[in-house]
Amino acid sequence: MEATGEVKLVDKYMRKDVEDLLKRKFFVVQSFEIYGGVAGLFDFGPLGAALKNNVEQLWRNHFVLEEDMLEVSCSALTPEAVLKTSGHVDKFEDFMVKDTKNGQCYRADKILEDHIDKVLQKKAKKMKQEEIEKLEKIKAQADSFSQTEIGEILKELKVKAPDTGNPISDPVPFNLMFSTQIGPSGNAKGYFRPETAQSQFVNFKRLLEFNNGKLPFASASIGLGFRNEISPRAGLLRVREFTMAEIEHFCDPLNKDHHKFCLVKDETLPLLSKEKQLSLEDPITDLTVSEAVEQGIINNQTLAYFMTRTFLFFEKCGIPRSAIRFRQHLDTEMAHYASDCWDCEIETSYGWIEIVGHADRSCFDLDCHSKYTKTELLGSRPLETPIEVSTTYILPDKKKLGKALKRDCKLLCDYLDGLDEDERQSIHKQYDEADTEFEIDVGSKKITVPKDSIEVKIDTKMSMEEKFAPHVIEPAFGIGRAIYCIFEHCFRKRPDSETRTYFAFPAMIAPVKTSILPLVSNSDELLKHVYELKTRLNKEGVSSKVDDSSQTIGRRYARTDECGIPFAITVDNDTLTDNTVTLREIHTTKQVRIPIDDLSEVILTLSKGMLTWESIQEKYPNFETEKEES
Amino acid sequence: MEATGEVKLVDKYMRKDVEDLLKRKFFVVQSFEIYGGVAGLFDFGPLGAALKNNVEQLWRNHFVLEEDMLEVSCSALTPEAVLKTSGHVDKFEDFMVKDTKNGQCYRADKILEDHIDKVLQKKAKKMKQEEIEKLEKIKAQADSFSQTEIGEILKELKVKAPDTGNPISDPVPFNLMFSTQIGPSGNAKGYFRPETAQSQFVNFKRLLEFNNGKLPFASASIGLGFRNEISPRAGLLRVREFTMAEIEHFCDPLNKDHHKFCLVKDETLPLLSKEKQLSLEDPITDLTVSEAVEQGIINNQTLAYFMTRTFLFFEKCGIPRSAIRFRQHLDTEMAHYASDCWDCEIETSYGWIEIVGHADRSCFDLDCHSKYTKTELLGSRPLETPIEVSTTYILPDKKKLGKALKRDCKLLCDYLDGLDEDERQSIHKQYDEADTEFEIDVGSKKITVPKDSIEVKIDTKMSMEEKFAPHVIEPAFGIGRAIYCIFEHCFRKRPDSETRTYFAFPAMIAPVKTSILPLVSNSDELLKHVYELKTRLNKEGVSSKVDDSSQTIGRRYARTDECGIPFAITVDNDTLTDNTVTLREIHTTKQVRIPIDDLSEVILTLSKGMLTWESIQEKYPNFETEKEES
Repeated sequence: MEATGEVKLVDKYMRKDVEDLLKRKFFVVQSFEIYGGVAGLFDFGPLGAALKNNVEQLWRNHFVLEEDMLEVSCSALTPEAVLKTSGHVDKFEDFMVKDTKNGQCYRADKILEDHIDKVLQKKAKKMKQEEIEKLEKIKAQADSFSQTEIGEILKELKVKAPDTGNPISDPVPFNLMFSTQIGPSGNAKGYFRPETAQSQFVNFKRLLEFNNGKLPFASASIGLGFRNEISPRAGLLRVREFTMAEIEHFCDPLNKDHHKFCLVKDETLPLLSKEKQLSLEDPITDLTVSEAVEQGIINNQTLAYFMTRTFLFFEKCGIPRSAIRFRQHLDTEMAHYASDCWDCEIETSYGWIEIVGHADRSCFDLDCHSKYTKTELLGSRPLETPIEVSTTYILPDKKKLGKALKRDCKLLCDYLDGLDEDERQSIHKQYDEADTEFEIDVGSKKITVPKDSIEVKIDTKMSMEEKFAPHVIEPAFGIGRAIYCIFEHCFRKRPDSETRTYFAFPAMIAPVKTSILPLVSNSDELLKHVYELKTRLNKEGVSSKVDDSSQTIGRRYARTDECGIPFAITVDNDTLTDNTVTLREIHTTKQVRIPIDDLSEVILTLSKGMLTWESIQEKYPNFETEKEES
Repeated sequence: MEATGEVKLVDKYMRKDVEDLLKRKFFVVQSFEIYGGVAGLFDFGPLGAALKNNVEQLWRNHFVLEEDMLEVSCSALTPEAVLKTSGHVDKFEDFMVKDTKNGQCYRADKILEDHIDKVLQKKAKKMKQEEIEKLEKIKAQADSFSQTEIGEILKELKVKAPDTGNPISDPVPFNLMFSTQIGPSGNAKGYFRPETAQSQFVNFKRLLEFNNGKLPFASASIGLGFRNEISPRAGLLRVREFTMAEIEHFCDPLNKDHHKFCLVKDETLPLLSKEKQLSLEDPITDLTVSEAVEQGIINNQTLAYFMTRTFLFFEKCGIPRSAIRFRQHLDTEMAHYASDCWDCEIETSYGWIEIVGHADRSCFDLDCHSKYTKTELLGSRPLETPIEVSTTYILPDKKKLGKALKRDCKLLCDYLDGLDEDERQSIHKQYDEADTEFEIDVGSKKITVPKDSIEVKIDTKMSMEEKFAPHVIEPAFGIGRAIYCIFEHCFRKRPDSETRTYFAFPAMIAPVKTSILPLVSNSDELLKHVYELKTRLNKEGVSSKVDDSSQTIGRRYARTDECGIPFAITVDNDTLTDNTVTLREIHTTKQVRIPIDDLSEVILTLSKGMLTWESIQEKYPNFETEKEES
């Protein structure tokens, strides 16, 4: 659903300018461009890759280091059993329709949304208000309909294939995972993971042990995910291979408070709850974090804490507050594993786009993996008063059982070995109710067991702790999407010239911190100073890019601006005598004269956001030049 | 081939201790462990992931930043055409044999090597010297035999399936790439890349443009690679998914000098040339880099420059010089794209293992991609005297041609559009020799063309530059393998106790820089100081791990040592009054008393290798404790 009212829409017509600049300066291009490209795959060139590294490092500092998370790095290639258990083999799918004449495939929800947009654009004036509202409501729920529902709606609205106007097929589910074979045998199917989360869940036991058995704790992972999108468009926003940064916060289901909640409770978040979305009132509510939790709009402190941290992260990335909102998932829209979910959406020229999901996955995943693997994936809470804990033992008399069952004896014993307490209690009940024999279903067959070949024992202990299946609260970031938003929101045009465009990245994430320019390019002495300075800055941890081409200094400033380099150092003849240079800031284009010895510290401090450019302008003498050429 | 003589073999019996510690402290475990694991897939836990990040960052600083390389980040998923062109679809394979009874698959060269090892171990004493040498020579070439050759040798040596003793099948080639389908159509085959190199090649044009058209330059990429190994063993050394760091240095084939060669020319490298390997003399030759290039042992300065930089990189990683050597590939062993290749090998408990390949790939890859895509992938060199450059134009008279050929006209015109200069010249020759008509093979069919429907024009210009296909020199690192070598070479046992083991990682790559320990765990005041100190260090860029468990301080030192944390800070009662703490270094276990205000700078400077622990011991008062408990 599009936002209305206060929030200013990003100018849609800038998109082309942004994308042109991204391509021209090799920030991002379609992968395998000289082969015609592949839809949904992109390569980051030198500036894009550096920006991406910096955003990942900022994320690591903001989340992993500040919150003391356990970062892991796990395999993308995943055996089928794991993703079957997690539900992805059966449920990780979109509905697809085909152009019945040329076979072209489309995502059912996307062509439904596009169709509604077109209808509203063309005919809204002639339509009744209730008709418009009906269509808007359908669009808002497009990706949450069942297969039958969306099929019926597509028919009712007479939706055709968008490229040809041909009729479309009924929707069918298409699984979004890339499958492959592991090893040469041909019978070990695998997938490339659609999310990093599952690896964190299957390592839960080791993570808990690493954390000395204490809960809550969070693990985190930055890594590749893969989704075989049906028909990817929308540039960097819908891709088939992407970097994700996911956090899995494991906690006691009885206590989802967060120990650092007090630090964020007075922040204000723009919230769009599920009730508001369907009511079509002005949907955004600005609430403080503590109000939102107290009023039950956000389910718990931990979910709210992470939402606020996400909000603060995007501020550091240069996204304006007014372009961020949190939208709660509709009940019908929620992923199969989630019990509550808030998307952090950022406004772009494509509309409001999900960049981060904040999901309460409850104990769904740990439970599934635990059951399938017969591995205990539990935490424990201390008790004030001890409780009785009973363990049931089913003890086969192997001699008697062997005689009675022959080869089935081993089958039965293996089966009994793998049972959990609930299952053992249910056998115990059967045993108690049985006369002389009873039947046990071991999966592959039913075995009739003589009662006297089995003994049941119950062991009772007092325990000072109680075990539970931890709940998981998961903030999951799409790093590529975040980067696209940064591109759009940092794009600028100089007021005096349409063609002088630049990226005003926060220095912290800028791909290169400074450029170094000799005032003129034909002086060996200036060039020597330029390259010595580059070596020195590099040693001191400041990245730089030299432009010693013969272009005018104004042209070269324009070029460094297009690369989003926040500072430019110019080496001139005065440098040779007094060891000072000029330092220019991209946004103001103002310059100061500064000793070379101060450069690294000034640039590093500015890049960490610990000093402002204004304070540098106060400290060092202003350097006046003639108006920059365009 | 195993090294003999001077080089001290790493104690094979430490491997188990290393692997135990890696698993126990969750540095690395097999992926999907609770599902029984998958051969060749590993997960890095918190300490392993942090070490891996640090090694990657060190690599980025040492290569990308110091050498001003263009780092890119490209798609792993690759369409078939790209890898067909590069030769991987046809040639990226190992030979596989099967146990004829149970179907188990083995790599032919590996079971040959293992067989020879066993024979030599059991029977060497009874064998003649020439027999032994013959077997050793076979083993040295095991992975360079053709399919027929290795089949014959396996038969001759009567090699059986190692796990069962059953007969084995003849060897067959098995392609090592993971294949999948891109998109829903089912007719777009793709692979997960076996190397990052191809993405750098297909982006060559954009990279050259980014570098303002200047050569030489190097691109670089750190990213995932995938190889569907037939039967992975040897832990982290032979895996199916791995992080690679690859550099592609593009240069003029007539000039492979390197502008920074003078900085490394006096370094000594341990070289094992191809001649020496087959002669079975003492194989290692220690030569200075300039000697090696002058004597033609290493083909050119650039190859030698990168080999030396690799050597220096591993020194920073804590690998002793004596455990590093460079082995040249045998002619028969070289990859299909390489014209010269030197492996940097590191000695481990598994023998000498290839960690980095330094290959001169000549112009193989750019040539292939250029021909297939009809895209010019050339560099240019300036000329002192201008030369004549001719361009041939084949100009169809579309009116006449349309009449003569009907629907074939478009086919022919498209074909002519896509030709390069050589091909146009060959058509020109046919044209000149033809009477009234001649035949052009457009690929899908042969078309007879009337001579008068075509005109040929030659355009000649003077040019101050000459175009050429750049050569590529490629250092390709296996980051996972490097990390395994770091684990083995940094593993230590305290002289006074077999059970007190630790990792003496260089502080620069250590996963966490310092631990913070309250002297006793039951003092709220000490704990408050501990957590305040953690927050402060974190802000100042020093990572830390608190151990506030109730274990004795000696046990907790032992625990932080096992994690490879180089420094430990202890907060005690004196801290409360004088704001000092003790700082302990892992290897010496010596402690100094140091003001809290100095901590960050001291630890950061030590971590950058700009100060030694000895100098800290001189500067700050020694702190004596009783002997650490074990």
